[in-house]
Amino acid sequence: MANVVFHFENGEKVVVSTALGENLLETARKSNVVIDAPCSGNASCGKCKVKYLGGKLDSQKTRHISDSEYEEGWRLACVSHIAGDVEVLVPDIASAYRSRMKVADLSSPQEVAIFEEAKAGLEEIGLSMENNLHIVKIRMEPPTLDDTMPDIERVIRALQEETGIQYIRIPYATLRKLPDVLRRNDFDVQCIIGKAQRHVFVYDIHGNNEDLIVGGLAVDIGTTTVSAVVVNMLNGKILAKASTGNGQIRYGADVINRIIESTKQGGRGRLQDAIVAETLNPMIQQMCRAAGISTRHIYRVSIAGNTTMNHLLMGINADPLRMEPYIPAFFKTNSFYASDINLKVNPDAHIIMAPNIGSYVGGDITAGTLVSRLWDRPEFSLFIDLGTNGELVFGNSDFMMSCACSAGPAFEGGDISCGMRATDGAIEACTIDRDTMEPSLSIIGEEGTKPVGICGSGIIDIISELFRCGIISPKGKFIREGSRVKHDAYGMGSYVLAFEAESGSVKDVELTEVDIDNFIRAKGAIFSAIRTMLRSLDFDISMIEQVYVAGGIGSGINMQNAINIGMFPDIPVECYHYIGNSSLSGAYAMLLSTKAERKTYELAKNMTYLELSTEPGYMDEFVACCFLPHTDSTLFPSVEQG
Amino acid sequence: MANVVFHFENGEKVVVSTALGENLLETARKSNVVIDAPCSGNASCGKCKVKYLGGKLDSQKTRHISDSEYEEGWRLACVSHIAGDVEVLVPDIASAYRSRMKVADLSSPQEVAIFEEAKAGLEEIGLSMENNLHIVKIRMEPPTLDDTMPDIERVIRALQEETGIQYIRIPYATLRKLPDVLRRNDFDVQCIIGKAQRHVFVYDIHGNNEDLIVGGLAVDIGTTTVSAVVVNMLNGKILAKASTGNGQIRYGADVINRIIESTKQGGRGRLQDAIVAETLNPMIQQMCRAAGISTRHIYRVSIAGNTTMNHLLMGINADPLRMEPYIPAFFKTNSFYASDINLKVNPDAHIIMAPNIGSYVGGDITAGTLVSRLWDRPEFSLFIDLGTNGELVFGNSDFMMSCACSAGPAFEGGDISCGMRATDGAIEACTIDRDTMEPSLSIIGEEGTKPVGICGSGIIDIISELFRCGIISPKGKFIREGSRVKHDAYGMGSYVLAFEAESGSVKDVELTEVDIDNFIRAKGAIFSAIRTMLRSLDFDISMIEQVYVAGGIGSGINMQNAINIGMFPDIPVECYHYIGNSSLSGAYAMLLSTKAERKTYELAKNMTYLELSTEPGYMDEFVACCFLPHTDSTLFPSVEQG
Repeated sequence: MANVVFHFENGEKVVVSTALGENLLETARKSNVVIDAPCSGNASCGKCKVKYLGGKLDSQKTRHISDSEYEEGWRLACVSHIAGDVEVLVPDIASAYRSRMKVADLSSPQEVAIFEEAKAGLEEIGLSMENNLHIVKIRMEPPTLDDTMPDIERVIRALQEETGIQYIRIPYATLRKLPDVLRRNDFDVQCIIGKAQRHVFVYDIHGNNEDLIVGGLAVDIGTTTVSAVVVNMLNGKILAKASTGNGQIRYGADVINRIIESTKQGGRGRLQDAIVAETLNPMIQQMCRAAGISTRHIYRVSIAGNTTMNHLLMGINADPLRMEPYIPAFFKTNSFYASDINLKVNPDAHIIMAPNIGSYVGGDITAGTLVSRLWDRPEFSLFIDLGTNGELVFGNSDFMMSCACSAGPAFEGGDISCGMRATDGAIEACTIDRDTMEPSLSIIGEEGTKPVGICGSGIIDIISELFRCGIISPKGKFIREGSRVKHDAYGMGSYVLAFEAESGSVKDVELTEVDIDNFIRAKGAIFSAIRTMLRSLDFDISMIEQVYVAGGIGSGINMQNAINIGMFPDIPVECYHYIGNSSLSGAYAMLLSTKAERKTYELAKNMTYLELSTEPGYMDEFVACCFLPHTDSTLFPSVEQG
Repeated sequence: MANVVFHFENGEKVVVSTALGENLLETARKSNVVIDAPCSGNASCGKCKVKYLGGKLDSQKTRHISDSEYEEGWRLACVSHIAGDVEVLVPDIASAYRSRMKVADLSSPQEVAIFEEAKAGLEEIGLSMENNLHIVKIRMEPPTLDDTMPDIERVIRALQEETGIQYIRIPYATLRKLPDVLRRNDFDVQCIIGKAQRHVFVYDIHGNNEDLIVGGLAVDIGTTTVSAVVVNMLNGKILAKASTGNGQIRYGADVINRIIESTKQGGRGRLQDAIVAETLNPMIQQMCRAAGISTRHIYRVSIAGNTTMNHLLMGINADPLRMEPYIPAFFKTNSFYASDINLKVNPDAHIIMAPNIGSYVGGDITAGTLVSRLWDRPEFSLFIDLGTNGELVFGNSDFMMSCACSAGPAFEGGDISCGMRATDGAIEACTIDRDTMEPSLSIIGEEGTKPVGICGSGIIDIISELFRCGIISPKGKFIREGSRVKHDAYGMGSYVLAFEAESGSVKDVELTEVDIDNFIRAKGAIFSAIRTMLRSLDFDISMIEQVYVAGGIGSGINMQNAINIGMFPDIPVECYHYIGNSSLSGAYAMLLSTKAERKTYELAKNMTYLELSTEPGYMDEFVACCFLPHTDSTLFPSVEQG
C-alpha cells in the first residue's frame, strides 16, 4: 500500500491509501478527486495533467508533455502509476473549462434579455405563460372545545371554498407543517397550490404575512455544460442564473464514453451522483442563495437535455441507446418528482422533461425548437444547436426533420488546450493583422480582464483569421513563421494569443495544431450533417431561408467567420440569428407555460428523425468537410489569402 | 471528559465520551443505548436499573434498589452521574418487557386463526377481501430498426390493451428498471399494478417466469407494543407475524410523556426515528426474511395506532393533542407514502391509516371496532381495548360512543417489576392454594419453559387469587405471612411466583405491592370509564349484552377473575369474547379489502367521542374503583375471603 497526496491550488489536499501499481487517474476517480479526462483515460486528449511534487511515480512521457513541462514535473495522470508514497498537485487549469461555477449577476440586462425575448416571442403567437401554480390566502376560525375539527379538515374546507374544487390533496410534507404553521399564524395562512381541473395539490403552507416566492427551476443539462435559471413562477421573472461544468466529464467527454462508463459496476450510480449531487444540487443551492429564497420554495422543475443525459440523470440503463436498434427507455415521463432523485428542491416538485424524439435527438432540441419558432413560419429554416452533440432541425410550419452528429466538446472549449466556456476571461472574438500577425482580442468580463483561455466563438475567429492571413494551410498546419508562432520538440505548431505575462493564466494562451484539428473535425461534423440531411430531403443549401444558431459557443459568434471556415452554409449573414442557449430558454418556457409544455410534446411528435450514421454518403461528406473551408471550394466565399 | 462503557449481556459494548457530571440515562439516550425509563427519568418507576462494574459513578440509593441489590452494584441510571471513567452493565431485564422481537412461527395455527376469523367474519357480512392490486402479464414484440418505440411507450400500450384503461402511470422506480427487465426477459413480463377506475399505477415489473408475491403489511402501533403481519395481497394469506416493543419507550411510557419529549429540541425526529428506523424497519426486514420475500415487494401498508402514535410516526407536532382544545392535525390522511417516512418497503407503497376520531381515540380503536362487528348487531355491546391507553366503544347498529382513559402500560406488563409481554416465558395464568399459599402457574411457551416474568392476564389471576386467598387486602397490601411473602427494608411486601432457582430469570419472579398498586389503578381506570360513559348515555351496566375484549393482555385472560377484581362489569362470563389484537386484525382487514377500508372511515364518522376528563363524576368514580374490587361491593360478586 502507498499513500497518495493530491494537493490543490487552494491549499486543500486529499490523502488516499492505495495499492502499488495503481493508475493515478483511477485512484483519483475512486477518491472523488476531479481530474478531467475527456478521453476517459486513453492518453489521447492530454487534459489530465498533474504536477509531480515528490515521492515515487512511474510515468511515461507523451506527446502532450513538452520537455520543459516534463522537467517542471508535469505528468499525465492516466499514464502514471503509483510506485510508492507520492504527492501531486492537481492544477485548477486541469479543469479550467468545466469546474468554475458562475452565478450570474442579474443586474446585467443581457443575462435576462434572452429569456424575456423567448417569453415575448411565444406569447406573441398565443402561448401564454400561465401555469397551475398559485398562492391562495385563507383565514380560518381557530378551533375551540366546541369546534374540534382536525387541522387538515379545516384547511381542506377553506381551500374547497376558495377554489371550488372538492378533492384537495395534502401531501406529507405539508401535513407535517400544518399544526405549527396554523398556530404560529393564528390560522391566517397562505397556501402554494397546484390547481388541476379536478384536484388541488397543496405544496406548501405559510403565514399570511410572509412575502412568498413561488420558485421554479429550468435546467439545460448539456454533455459538457449545465446551465440553469431560478424563476418566479407567478410572473416569469428570472431570479438567478448559473452555469457550470457537467460533473460527469471525468467519466468521458461525449455521450458514448459516458454510456460505456455507466455500464461498469456501480457506474449508473456514479454518473447519476455526478450530475445530481455534484452538479445540480450545488448550483441550486448557490442560485437560491443569490435569489434569497429557500431551495424548498422551488415547486416545479423543467429539464432539457439530450437523450443520454436524461437517462443518466434518472439512473436508467442507457446502453440500449448506443446499440442497435437504439431504443430509449422513454421519450417522455409521466410521473417524475424531485424526491425520486434527491434533487434538492421541494421534494414534491414535479419534474417536467422536454421530450426526446430519438436516441440522439433529445429534449434539448425539442425545447430549442420550441423557442426557435421555426414551426410557426412558412420559411424553410435551419435550427443548429452547437453542443457536444451537434443537432439540427430543418423545416417550417409544414414539416420538421432532425438529426444529430457528434461534434465533441470543442464548441464549448473542450478538447482545446486553452479552451474554456464563454465566461469571464475567455477570448470571445479576435482579429489578426495580416502583416504584423499581431492579434486584437475581445475578452469577456470587465474592462481590463486578462485572457485566461478561448471560448468557441473566439476559436472560430482565430482559425478564420489565421487562415485569412495565410498563417495556416487549408489543413490547419502552420505555414508562416513569426514571433507568435511556436513549434514544440515534436514539431507541433501553435499561435500565441497572449504570452504568459499578458495573460491571466500560468502559461501562454495559445491555439495549437491539435486544437485546430479538433475544431476542424467539429465544424466538419456540423456542415456535413447539414448537407446530408438537406440532400435526403432533396433540398439544397441555397434553399435555406433562415438559420437559428444556439449553444454555449458564445454570443460573440461571428457568423461570417463561421461561414468562411466552412462551418455554416454560405447564405447572407443577415439570415443568421444567434438565439443563445435555446435548450435553457425552451426549458424556461415549458416551466412557466402549460401551453408551451403541451406544444413541445406536440412538436416532438411531429418531428421526423434522421439517423445520420446509416445515411449513405455521410462519411464521405464529413471527410470533405475536414478542410478550411472544404474540398469543394465553390461552396464558400473565397477569402483573401496572404 | 470521561469514557463511559456500556456493556450488554450478549458481550457487546458501546464506549461513549462525555462530560463529567452528565446524567447516565441522558448519556445512554444520546448514544442510542436503550435503557427503559417509562417515567422518563423521574426516579419514579425504577425500571432503568444498570449494574455498576467499576470506575466513578455518583448515584443515590432509592426505594427501587434494595440493600443487597445496591451491594451487588445495581443503580438507577436516572439518578446516576458520571464522575470519571466508568463501566456499567445494561441487563436485558432492564428492557425485558419491550426489547425482544418475536417473529412468529406460522406453523402454529393459533397465530393465523385470529386473522382468518376476522376475515371470515367481515366477508360474512358483505365486506369482501378485495383490493386494487393485481398482477398483469404482458408479452410484447421486441423493438427493431423499423419499430423504435421507446420502452415506456411499449409497456403503456400493452397495459392499455390488457386493462382497458388509458392512463397508465409509470413511476420513477418502475421506469428505472424498464430497459433491464424488458431485455433480460425478452419483453415477456408481468407487472404489479394498482388499478383504479380511471388509471393504472405500475408498482413494479418482473419477468414472466418469476413467482411473484404481492406483499402487504399491516401494523398495530401500540404505545408499548408494536405488532405486524406481512400478507399476500392476492389471497390474504399471512406470511409472517412479529411483535416487539415500541422503541419510543425510552422517551416515556405513556402518550403524554412522549408528546412532552417530542416538543424538546430535535424531539420529533428522535421519536420518529425510534418508531420507524428502530422499530418498524427491523421488524419488516425480519418478517420479510421469514416470509422469503423482498421488502420492496410490499406494495401497500395499513397502520392502526392511537392518535398520538399516528402523529409521532409522521413526525407531526402532537403538542396540540394534549392542550386545550385538544386538536389533532388529522383524522385521516389523503396522501401518504412509504418514501415519505423512509419506511423500508416499496417506496411507492401507499400507507393507509385507520382513522382517528379524537385526540385520544385513534385508528387502533376504529380498526378494532371494525372487526368487533358491534356496528352490525342490534345488541348493546361494549368493545374494550386494553392498551396503554384503555379505550372503549359502546353501541350497536344504531349508534356508537367511544372514550379513552389512561391505564398505563400495566396490561402489557409495563410498570410491573417483573412484567413482560405475553410471549415465551410469561406467566399467563395462575391459581393459588388458599392453605399452602403455593401457586400453580401456566407459562407461555413449550412444555418446561421456565417463568421469566408475568404478562397482563397472569397479573389479573395473581391479584384475584391473592385477594381470594386473603393474602392481600382490598387496598392491595399484604396481610398474610408465608414463605412466598417477602418484605423489603422499606416494608414493601411482595409475593414470589418463582424463586430465582425455579425461574428463567436472574432474580425472583414476584409481584410487589407497588406492582399491585399500579395494576389496581389501571383496572380502576377501565372500570370507571365504563361506568362514566354508560351513565352519560343513561345506561346501566346490566344493559350490556356483549363484551369484546381486545389487546395484548394475553389470550389466557380469565374473564371471571377480571370481574372478581373489579376490572370488568359483572355480567355472565359467557357474554365476554376475547378478540385478540383487534387493532392489528382491523388493519389487516383494511389492508386487504377496499370495502373494509371504506367501512372503517364510515364507522369513524358515525362514532361520538366522549371526553372523559371533562365528564362530571369521573374522578370520583376512578377513586372508588381503586380498590379490590370496588368501594361499592354490590357491583361485584363476593369472593370467598380466607
